[in-house]
Amino acid sequence: MTDQNETGTGRFAGGAAWVRGRFVPMDEAVLPVTDWGFTRSDVVYDVVHVHDGAFFRLQDHLDRFERAMARRRLKPAEDRAAIEAILHRCVALAGLSHAYVAMACSRGRPRVAGSRRPEDCDNHLIAYAIPWIDVIPKDVQARGAHLWIAGTPRVPDASVDPTVKNYQWNDLTSGLLEAHDEGYDTAILFDRDGFLTEGPGFNVFIVSGDRVLTPDRGALQGITRKTVLELCDGLGLEGRVAPITREMLDEADEVFTTTTAGGVMPVSRVGGRILGNDRPGPVTMRLYDAYWAAHADPRYATPVLPLEATAGLEAA
Amino acid sequence: MTDQNETGTGRFAGGAAWVRGRFVPMDEAVLPVTDWGFTRSDVVYDVVHVHDGAFFRLQDHLDRFERAMARRRLKPAEDRAAIEAILHRCVALAGLSHAYVAMACSRGRPRVAGSRRPEDCDNHLIAYAIPWIDVIPKDVQARGAHLWIAGTPRVPDASVDPTVKNYQWNDLTSGLLEAHDEGYDTAILFDRDGFLTEGPGFNVFIVSGDRVLTPDRGALQGITRKTVLELCDGLGLEGRVAPITREMLDEADEVFTTTTAGGVMPVSRVGGRILGNDRPGPVTMRLYDAYWAAHADPRYATPVLPLEATAGLEAA
Repeated sequence: MTDQNETGTGRFAGGAAWVRGRFVPMDEAVLPVTDWGFTRSDVVYDVVHVHDGAFFRLQDHLDRFERAMARRRLKPAEDRAAIEAILHRCVALAGLSHAYVAMACSRGRPRVAGSRRPEDCDNHLIAYAIPWIDVIPKDVQARGAHLWIAGTPRVPDASVDPTVKNYQWNDLTSGLLEAHDEGYDTAILFDRDGFLTEGPGFNVFIVSGDRVLTPDRGALQGITRKTVLELCDGLGLEGRVAPITREMLDEADEVFTTTTAGGVMPVSRVGGRILGNDRPGPVTMRLYDAYWAAHADPRYATPVLPLEATAGLEAA
Repeated sequence: MTDQNETGTGRFAGGAAWVRGRFVPMDEAVLPVTDWGFTRSDVVYDVVHVHDGAFFRLQDHLDRFERAMARRRLKPAEDRAAIEAILHRCVALAGLSHAYVAMACSRGRPRVAGSRRPEDCDNHLIAYAIPWIDVIPKDVQARGAHLWIAGTPRVPDASVDPTVKNYQWNDLTSGLLEAHDEGYDTAILFDRDGFLTEGPGFNVFIVSGDRVLTPDRGALQGITRKTVLELCDGLGLEGRVAPITREMLDEADEVFTTTTAGGVMPVSRVGGRILGNDRPGPVTMRLYDAYWAAHADPRYATPVLPLEATAGLEAA
């Protein structure tokens, strides 16, 4: 059993993970190179963050994770209550008050040697809590991110469902490499039909007057995205999911991105275009402030449980 | 250093791997759950087989692996000569005369904590040799495989280059799950434009008279595929890479698949259609025989080197 004294500065100082039914330090959080979660990227995942000692919208993340597993017919040994307790315990073991908390369910490996059937595999849960680090550096946040419009088209929804959070990032990584070649921070991708989708690890929004729009296709149904759409109401803004063309992007007053691992991110440049005097826009900043203020809302915050509350998860 | 006596029936009985600059038994061949090869499927790979003590077309596989790494800007510490020696040594340590030998180069993890830049990562080589197991069971080979025509469209080449061998199998896995639901062995996928591509882990061919065609898009440039195309000449057949429509598939005399981990595989059913009296076709079987006969060709066979020839690969 895990030594409950070894939190924070002990063996779990760099983070804590749940792998194959055990809590382990991050450097022991590994998977076989023959695991289909690796060799077929046959895995779904989710990421929730802990802010000031509390999970933000934990149930929404668990809902989405459960839906994703069901869509890919993945079923780990742990039920939802156990997964929730495991996430709490990873954070508590690591002694983190601000954390990036990941959960993944991998296809695993076949019970029958040589089988190529997903149905023959033992699916398994991976979870871990590591220190929170903003996806976009502070200086980039202050000036607004510079987005490159990638030449690589986003994979179509019919081929890979983007609402099932997955690790298949090749098109996104191609966009990211393009962006870096051009001196941009990151990229946004259009699909082959000419509609805006998302970027590597984030949703994108455009602001036109009081309308705050985010793509209806090719994109994850992000929890930060959902939060922003909900917050629009209280701010007199019209938040909507809609098809977004290149023309709409080019004519937008403001652009921003959203991600669990960074929240609302202002954007000051898109391709060659400089927006709002090269600074974060006013609507973006209202949503930015509202997003972080929402973290105090008890409807959204789930305080991390102390270690005593989640004992006994490991098999004897 | 690795104990050279521990081959075959020793600690390397189940196979031998090269991970992070060391030879290890398969149960120690692992990667961190935070490696981008897993969390972004940012990895390329290749698979070569050893038949009767010799690699088959090893240089072709290494050529393709090098091209794939270059395309994704991946560069491991090991150069080509070292990779080749590592593959030899994995097979020799495992004491295998018939082996499935994989090599992969993963993006790795960023040197700078929190970086989301692929350029900041230490790429690393993974290689392993495990016992050869036919992808398709012997009884299925004898009766011919039953292929389901998947409803899931193949990811377009422009989004993810299928000639860069990758682990992003979601569309292929979706097709496989469809196939199993319908009682078929495996699946073939068309792209959104209506052209035949490939299946999960294999290329597909159609035979119409003396013409032996394989798709020109959405598919890996398989080494077994290449071998079959080359063998056609000597058999009075016209092997060609071409666009293949659904109509052409429906009118084909024979269908077969090719894969390194199985060779030439006869197909007796495609969707609802039964081909050639529900048995492997004659052209398929000529190519099947020619493919296995080619393994004795010294142009293709590279005998596995003894352990003495590949010492000193691990850092002290």
